[in-house]
Amino acid sequence: MQKTEGIATDAPKGGSTYGDFEIVDDQGDIELQTLFTGVCGTDRGMVAGHLQFAYNPKGQSNIILGHEALGKVIDPGSSTSLRKGDLVVPVVRRPGDCVNCRIGRQDNCSDGEKHEAGITGKNGFMRRTFYDSEEFLVKVPDLSMKDYAVLTEPTKNVMKALEVFGIVSKRSVFAAGDSTYRGKKCTVIGTGPEAFLYAMSFSDLGFTTHITNRHPVDDNRLKICEYFNLGFVDYSTDMGTFDQGIDVVVDTSGDPGTIFTFYRKLNNNGIMLLFGTNGKAQPTSVSGVDIDHMIERNLTILGTVDAAKIHYIQALEKLSQWGNLPNSPLKKLITSLYDPQDETVFTRRNPSEIKAVIRWD
Amino acid sequence: MQKTEGIATDAPKGGSTYGDFEIVDDQGDIELQTLFTGVCGTDRGMVAGHLQFAYNPKGQSNIILGHEALGKVIDPGSSTSLRKGDLVVPVVRRPGDCVNCRIGRQDNCSDGEKHEAGITGKNGFMRRTFYDSEEFLVKVPDLSMKDYAVLTEPTKNVMKALEVFGIVSKRSVFAAGDSTYRGKKCTVIGTGPEAFLYAMSFSDLGFTTHITNRHPVDDNRLKICEYFNLGFVDYSTDMGTFDQGIDVVVDTSGDPGTIFTFYRKLNNNGIMLLFGTNGKAQPTSVSGVDIDHMIERNLTILGTVDAAKIHYIQALEKLSQWGNLPNSPLKKLITSLYDPQDETVFTRRNPSEIKAVIRWD
Amino acid sequence: MQKTEGIATDAPKGGSTYGDFEIVDDQGDIELQTLFTGVCGTDRGMVAGHLQFAYNPKGQSNIILGHEALGKVIDPGSSTSLRKGDLVVPVVRRPGDCVNCRIGRQDNCSDGEKHEAGITGKNGFMRRTFYDSEEFLVKVPDLSMKDYAVLTEPTKNVMKALEVFGIVSKRSVFAAGDSTYRGKKCTVIGTGPEAFLYAMSFSDLGFTTHITNRHPVDDNRLKICEYFNLGFVDYSTDMGTFDQGIDVVVDTSGDPGTIFTFYRKLNNNGIMLLFGTNGKAQPTSVSGVDIDHMIERNLTILGTVDAAKIHYIQALEKLSQWGNLPNSPLKKLITSLYDPQDETVFTRRNPSEIKAVIRWD
Amino acid sequence: MQKTEGIATDAPKGGSTYGDFEIVDDQGDIELQTLFTGVCGTDRGMVAGHLQFAYNPKGQSNIILGHEALGKVIDPGSSTSLRKGDLVVPVVRRPGDCVNCRIGRQDNCSDGEKHEAGITGKNGFMRRTFYDSEEFLVKVPDLSMKDYAVLTEPTKNVMKALEVFGIVSKRSVFAAGDSTYRGKKCTVIGTGPEAFLYAMSFSDLGFTTHITNRHPVDDNRLKICEYFNLGFVDYSTDMGTFDQGIDVVVDTSGDPGTIFTFYRKLNNNGIMLLFGTNGKAQPTSVSGVDIDHMIERNLTILGTVDAAKIHYIQALEKLSQWGNLPNSPLKKLITSLYDPQDETVFTRRNPSEIKAVIRWD
Repeated sequence: MQKTEGIATDAPKGGSTYGDFEIVDDQGDIELQTLFTGVCGTDRGMVAGHLQFAYNPKGQSNIILGHEALGKVIDPGSSTSLRKGDLVVPVVRRPGDCVNCRIGRQDNCSDGEKHEAGITGKNGFMRRTFYDSEEFLVKVPDLSMKDYAVLTEPTKNVMKALEVFGIVSKRSVFAAGDSTYRGKKCTVIGTGPEAFLYAMSFSDLGFTTHITNRHPVDDNRLKICEYFNLGFVDYSTDMGTFDQGIDVVVDTSGDPGTIFTFYRKLNNNGIMLLFGTNGKAQPTSVSGVDIDHMIERNLTILGTVDAAKIHYIQALEKLSQWGNLPNSPLKKLITSLYDPQDETVFTRRNPSEIKAVIRWD
Repeated sequence: MQKTEGIATDAPKGGSTYGDFEIVDDQGDIELQTLFTGVCGTDRGMVAGHLQFAYNPKGQSNIILGHEALGKVIDPGSSTSLRKGDLVVPVVRRPGDCVNCRIGRQDNCSDGEKHEAGITGKNGFMRRTFYDSEEFLVKVPDLSMKDYAVLTEPTKNVMKALEVFGIVSKRSVFAAGDSTYRGKKCTVIGTGPEAFLYAMSFSDLGFTTHITNRHPVDDNRLKICEYFNLGFVDYSTDMGTFDQGIDVVVDTSGDPGTIFTFYRKLNNNGIMLLFGTNGKAQPTSVSGVDIDHMIERNLTILGTVDAAKIHYIQALEKLSQWGNLPNSPLKKLITSLYDPQDETVFTRRNPSEIKAVIRWD
Repeated sequence: MQKTEGIATDAPKGGSTYGDFEIVDDQGDIELQTLFTGVCGTDRGMVAGHLQFAYNPKGQSNIILGHEALGKVIDPGSSTSLRKGDLVVPVVRRPGDCVNCRIGRQDNCSDGEKHEAGITGKNGFMRRTFYDSEEFLVKVPDLSMKDYAVLTEPTKNVMKALEVFGIVSKRSVFAAGDSTYRGKKCTVIGTGPEAFLYAMSFSDLGFTTHITNRHPVDDNRLKICEYFNLGFVDYSTDMGTFDQGIDVVVDTSGDPGTIFTFYRKLNNNGIMLLFGTNGKAQPTSVSGVDIDHMIERNLTILGTVDAAKIHYIQALEKLSQWGNLPNSPLKKLITSLYDPQDETVFTRRNPSEIKAVIRWD
Repeated sequence: MQKTEGIATDAPKGGSTYGDFEIVDDQGDIELQTLFTGVCGTDRGMVAGHLQFAYNPKGQSNIILGHEALGKVIDPGSSTSLRKGDLVVPVVRRPGDCVNCRIGRQDNCSDGEKHEAGITGKNGFMRRTFYDSEEFLVKVPDLSMKDYAVLTEPTKNVMKALEVFGIVSKRSVFAAGDSTYRGKKCTVIGTGPEAFLYAMSFSDLGFTTHITNRHPVDDNRLKICEYFNLGFVDYSTDMGTFDQGIDVVVDTSGDPGTIFTFYRKLNNNGIMLLFGTNGKAQPTSVSGVDIDHMIERNLTILGTVDAAKIHYIQALEKLSQWGNLPNSPLKKLITSLYDPQDETVFTRRNPSEIKAVIRWD
């Protein structure tokens, strides 16, 4: 039985403990060292005991946290494609037996029987070492990406969302008359890491893209916006920017009131992607006129969660593209590095934080 | 200038007048006699003065009502494909100049510059005769369909919705493990004509299909349900039927409270099609948990309105299929025939009515 | 062990024997009586010993022929949806373990590990009785279809081909400017049953549709053409009909020379569906100019084989639609009924034959 | 009337002249300076008088050559998005009035009424200056791309081909069981610039990718292969590499014999993309067994030509990604720079040439 230093919680009760834990559910003979783990709202929600759907591995009294990770191969075991020293990103979801899981699309699991590392029934990656199999490891193509490849996991969500956008937008001619997205407007609600990754991606597609929040933001964010050609709007004082209508709204807030405020700005054939969750957010009121709006304009709203292994590969390609740009500020999305022993990472979040990361090596 | 007997309103003020009207906006040299026109909520809403988006043809003080029609060719003019005596269904929407209108998809008009016969800026078909051009007429393949081909217009909405469903459902493996929809559940909210046409179509696809309303229904409806293999549920007393979850919800009510009640029953990868509108419906409350539901389950909600000419052709094929079945009760969807002079058709609707139709010949 | 009267061959050697055979590979507890089995080129090719890919069930010295069947439920066994007396069509292909087979799409088997009843490794349906399981039986919705439901198997191939056509035709705007296929031309090479089923389907879609062969055809064929609005062209004397170009070519001949003759008539964005096979056909010459033609015009050629269970359901719906039309000549596609003992069905084919069927009840 | 120094031919007769030419068909008020123009087989074919489909602008006795260009904005005229000094790539095809042209997809022109700069009826870019309008100019996002952005035009062809691949590959589950293309094999026939751009793109998608030719290649090519993870195979001596089958074949040779040699290696659900043209290539023989191969395996062959404006944007993104990689050899695809006066660029092509470029500034 494997033993490793890590950070665990007792799901769904919460709390966090740094210490030695026995791991009984690793599968595969590739030995990996964790280099970095990202911290997101899900990790914090689990520590706070807010996520009732989280659960420990079967028969265990706790679960190692962490689903956003960058690892290094210590021993490639029986792998034919990985070598000692390779950097890898582990896949979060492990398949059940539904029609989607059967073809590697556990991100679209039909029956909920999949598991998620660090969240539902499988130990996560906030620990010194772990074992895994080739099927669930994605190789980082370029060692120069070491400092930001931990962003792969949040970026892969965007890649899947773009896939879904590509599919549903086929219901009409969505592009402009010159076949591009020039002149099409995208607004991303939120100013956290997912908001930036979504906005940068839609801007790359050719959309005039804004990120928005209900307060001003710090200089670091504004500089990243400028570099990646994103507008920032404090919508608490400036909704006028959106009076010309929006073609794609992405929400990372999970707040119903904000979501429906921007929903009402959607143009004909507009698409709203919901990604952020906040079960404790205040409810909002939706009227018959709101429903009419959706029908008369052929609107689409869609929720999207997680992503498939192919999206991890796409995410690494996208990060490589962004990271290698001249004077790229990509690394500035990681605003704070924590030690594994510093449990304050789970309980405080200062306004300048975009992405907090725990450094393990 | 053409003059014809018909029924007009002054949009959006309302009212209805039967009499002689001068028509200045017909285009095309094919002369047609109206045989039947269907009456729907839009017609009634216009007469009641409830639809603020309705407007008269440019420079006119009234608009001929009616967008659901079956016509007969009196004089084919320059048409090469139509002959005297042919039955035709006229297309409702006429294109503007946006990217969708340019390819015959004015149902997906991007900029709202299209017109709709009998609703927005173009005279409708509730009149003895009209002129039109081949581009906007769909030939009824079979004269035996005369008694029910007036259902083409409402059915074409379903055909478009199925097209959109086909597209958005590609975001995951939506079918069951044997490639069919067997075991997949569809619930259609409402018991009017669109509800039946949607439900019959999803049942044909292989879905276990229910229609539902908040009260019991009459024998005619129950018999149609039985013939077409549809379950009926009075959801005011029996929500338990839906406890196993629903894969596709179609709404024809436009009522936010009902819509979100059924939304909360959607299974993973579930799809909700919104078709019905009711701007005056009571608002409902949508919570953070409702938003989570959409994301964690990869749900899609979509509004769909109108349809393209190809969907009229598909609708005629579907109606032919249903109408020719042994002992088909298809005609029983038309529950009442009115004279053009009888304006009560716009102001009363008895519970047994599914589709009310005005007979012109 | 089950024993039943039937017709077997020794694959791939050939020959045909009517007699009693022991069946060791039926799976499932639903007992069925065979009513009709269609005879096609594959059956004849197996009897002639021409199909080298055919093989007996594992460990057996012969294989029961027949993959086109209509059966009647004698004993529904553990089935919850079938009842005694129901008519059913059995699915031909049985899945292996590839990604396509795993989701019920063994028609797209990636690795060739599937089996085909009556062809490759599984006994077929040319016998008095067989056992099967619910997963592989498709219920005929309407007993009135008894006389032509044996056409479901050949029709399901067309339904899959239409699915593939729908997918690949999305690479450009394929429809006309009014969203329909009006004015688009489809030519189907061949005058056998598949040719008719393809042509009738494309005509229903709105294509101007011809079937063609290198000789004149009999009155029965011409009458079916007339009813279903198909043109017939003897291309040995009249290639001029195709000088305006073709948008969709379907081949049921398998003859390379004919295929490339019609390929050269394809319009921009044209699509060619290859369905017929004839390994013994004469080769043809393909030039650099032929390759250019494909590129400069954005052409697509695709092979399509078999179909999934959902296409059987669609086929039954299509056959019901055609069969219930007023004075429908659908049954005239079946030109000859044979007794099971009459082995001439495998060895002769007179010119008036469209589909030959063996009657078992 | 505008006059400029450039290189013209008399299409389709051929020849090339460097000198002053009057330009009568430029449209738009943005003045541009040409920096680089790529030379491809089409330019050489026109000079040799081999391309019968080429023609001069209406009423003119010659046509300026060149469709692959990088320009610099001298005067932005009425443009709102371009500024003096910006780098731009001009779009080759200019729309006609068909359904595809109407939505900016003249690459899929239905009726052949589009024009192509430097090829069919519109002057090209091999000249000091030209005028154009914003609709047909694509901004290079990053000035650091100046040395290789002339590769945008050949790369945009690949981006369109990937779009088409993405569409047609949906006819089955094409990806591996883990949702990625790992283990899938792509072979690109040819070792010219398009071959490399295709191969690099498929390798990025995760395919095991080879380029192949009928002779060995030089060190520059081998080094580029190594960097971008491509295998090179001299198929004249080593067809064995392909014995395990191929999932995607891309042809850039236009040679029927080679095309069908690799076609016969396609796995089930395999896809062949034809891009290269060579009208003078030797014909090859295609048999009934070859046709069977296509059907039994559900294969797709498709021709693809040109690309839409959106693909230019994608090409620039791809080139930025490749060009900014650490120690990227991307620029080594450009093997020779010519002066505009040096007409030998059209008549000789040495074996080490990948892409020849004319430098204008």
